[in-house]
Amino acid sequence: MKALVYHGPGKKSLDERPIPKLAAPGDAIVKMTRTTICGTDLHILKGDVPTCEPGRILGHEGVGIVQEVGAAVSAFKPGDRVLISCISSCGKCDYCRRGIYSHCTTGGWILGNKIDGTQAEFVRIPHAETSLYPIPAGADEDALVMLSDILPTGFECGVLNGKVQPGSTVAIVGAGPIGLAALLTAQFYSPAQIVMIDHDANRLEVAKRFGATACINNGHADPVAAVMALTEQTGVDCAIEAVGIPATFELCEALIAPGGVIANVGVHGVKADLYLEKLWDRNIAITTRLVDTVSTPMLLKTVRSGRIDPARLVTHRFHLDDVAGAYDTFGRAAETHALKVIIEVS
Amino acid sequence: MKALVYHGPGKKSLDERPIPKLAAPGDAIVKMTRTTICGTDLHILKGDVPTCEPGRILGHEGVGIVQEVGAAVSAFKPGDRVLISCISSCGKCDYCRRGIYSHCTTGGWILGNKIDGTQAEFVRIPHAETSLYPIPAGADEDALVMLSDILPTGFECGVLNGKVQPGSTVAIVGAGPIGLAALLTAQFYSPAQIVMIDHDANRLEVAKRFGATACINNGHADPVAAVMALTEQTGVDCAIEAVGIPATFELCEALIAPGGVIANVGVHGVKADLYLEKLWDRNIAITTRLVDTVSTPMLLKTVRSGRIDPARLVTHRFHLDDVAGAYDTFGRAAETHALKVIIEVS
Repeated sequence: MKALVYHGPGKKSLDERPIPKLAAPGDAIVKMTRTTICGTDLHILKGDVPTCEPGRILGHEGVGIVQEVGAAVSAFKPGDRVLISCISSCGKCDYCRRGIYSHCTTGGWILGNKIDGTQAEFVRIPHAETSLYPIPAGADEDALVMLSDILPTGFECGVLNGKVQPGSTVAIVGAGPIGLAALLTAQFYSPAQIVMIDHDANRLEVAKRFGATACINNGHADPVAAVMALTEQTGVDCAIEAVGIPATFELCEALIAPGGVIANVGVHGVKADLYLEKLWDRNIAITTRLVDTVSTPMLLKTVRSGRIDPARLVTHRFHLDDVAGAYDTFGRAAETHALKVIIEVS
Repeated sequence: MKALVYHGPGKKSLDERPIPKLAAPGDAIVKMTRTTICGTDLHILKGDVPTCEPGRILGHEGVGIVQEVGAAVSAFKPGDRVLISCISSCGKCDYCRRGIYSHCTTGGWILGNKIDGTQAEFVRIPHAETSLYPIPAGADEDALVMLSDILPTGFECGVLNGKVQPGSTVAIVGAGPIGLAALLTAQFYSPAQIVMIDHDANRLEVAKRFGATACINNGHADPVAAVMALTEQTGVDCAIEAVGIPATFELCEALIAPGGVIANVGVHGVKADLYLEKLWDRNIAITTRLVDTVSTPMLLKTVRSGRIDPARLVTHRFHLDDVAGAYDTFGRAAETHALKVIIEVS
């Protein structure tokens, strides 16, 4: 089969690889129909993710058709259409029992990281019964690919952790795909304001169309002054960090109102400054989270009912044969205006 | 009347001052019977609290007898014995309606800070109906003085924010009065382990008597290795920071298990390093809080029922005439083994 293989920092190629085989009774083999690229895949290619070793097939998102299941799998059968979760979870360990699937002792984020991933014609999914979700025939697969990772990530790590409530004031720092996923799902809870902050004018325009009540270009304006002006000088109830660098995290510290929550979504490579001398008495919370995908069934229902349409995040399409072109377009998002790129596999 | 007056960094004296008068219809004048000294008073004396100006009577803790009430006060009458909360709250503003009394727009921590405090023969209490609590005649006033500030602070900022639950593993960094208050009140929730960390052997001995399941002297042992050994190498569900310096906060970052909460109680003067590159995917929360004293009525019940005895925190007693001696003993706690000092006023 064809598969996009990581060969060490800066190196990848579309290689011929054997079709994966069942390795445990709980496994399923899935024939991919569509996949996509995540910002995390770019991190891997920069060499930032040491758990991902050369030779690994990349990708942790996608939909497909069950090809074969192990002896312990009764919830799925060959021919079933499935959504693949970016988080594999056994459903049995202490963390899974608490709903912290991301820290499953034999799962978590392993796809396209510690085991071969979804940017290929076939993929082996461990713990298939608790890591795959059935999808109806005829569903919009572009939309569902967004539910493998970015929708639950924006929702769980940003909106749920951030305790967005009716009437809340929300700031989302970073209008990339994850920030936009938080923007879409924050609206489930009818906040009073959702202020989007980015320095990319195109992404802010998209945010405006997606429901942001205000957009601040922090390349041109002071975002703290702008947010304070919008919130009677108190700051926001919820600040969602969707970039992953110290400057944007520290911006959230400056934006948060007493009693508020800073919900970190960004993947950070270095430490940030925590201004405890200003925050110790502010009654705030800061949360971090690797998505658990506990909300995937609920999000599937919101998509099926038409409450949200995550396919709006898709800007470009490629076939797996041109996965190099897909990476190039996604990697130069500022120029190409790419948000999410769909890779059709079969 | 006699009152302990702050005269600028390093300067204080027991002065003769006029008895305070009612200034608003919601005020009460309270004749103090007992008060105490808080670590925050020492911070003021170091010049670390710019809101507290020279000329201010110090103190935000104590019990007394209502002397006089304003026209709007019906819940208290002269002669009533009362507990004074360190937090004054109007009960009406947006923050008070949300239970965030510490951020009351006309109250919060103002006693002995922005208005004259309790280390005096009389004190004016604004918003008396929502800032005083009735106490029964014959109650142990030493115990109740501990309910003005340190018990609700340890409980709300440490135990409640830290989500201590039955079976939890808890680390408390700092075995001073606040850390010990957290230790006493954490036991309401039957955690599996409460590990106390300090470099003062005497305080650790007290902690052992107060119910700590393990004590680690971080002057002699590596506290991270010790806590990991006690928790099957996972860390603790709840780390309570009860010191207020970067090193102890950063220790909490190293101790926390996936899914855990770092509950900051300490008063910080400088920033700390937040190791987001290690924490972004750990599904943790960090909380800060100035005590709201929402739990005071509940804590009063636990004291009356004998469930806890906060008078165990009292190590020394003085009369207001020797308040200088009280400050000296409290300020040299490492030598004097002082925890809380009671100052008898009348």
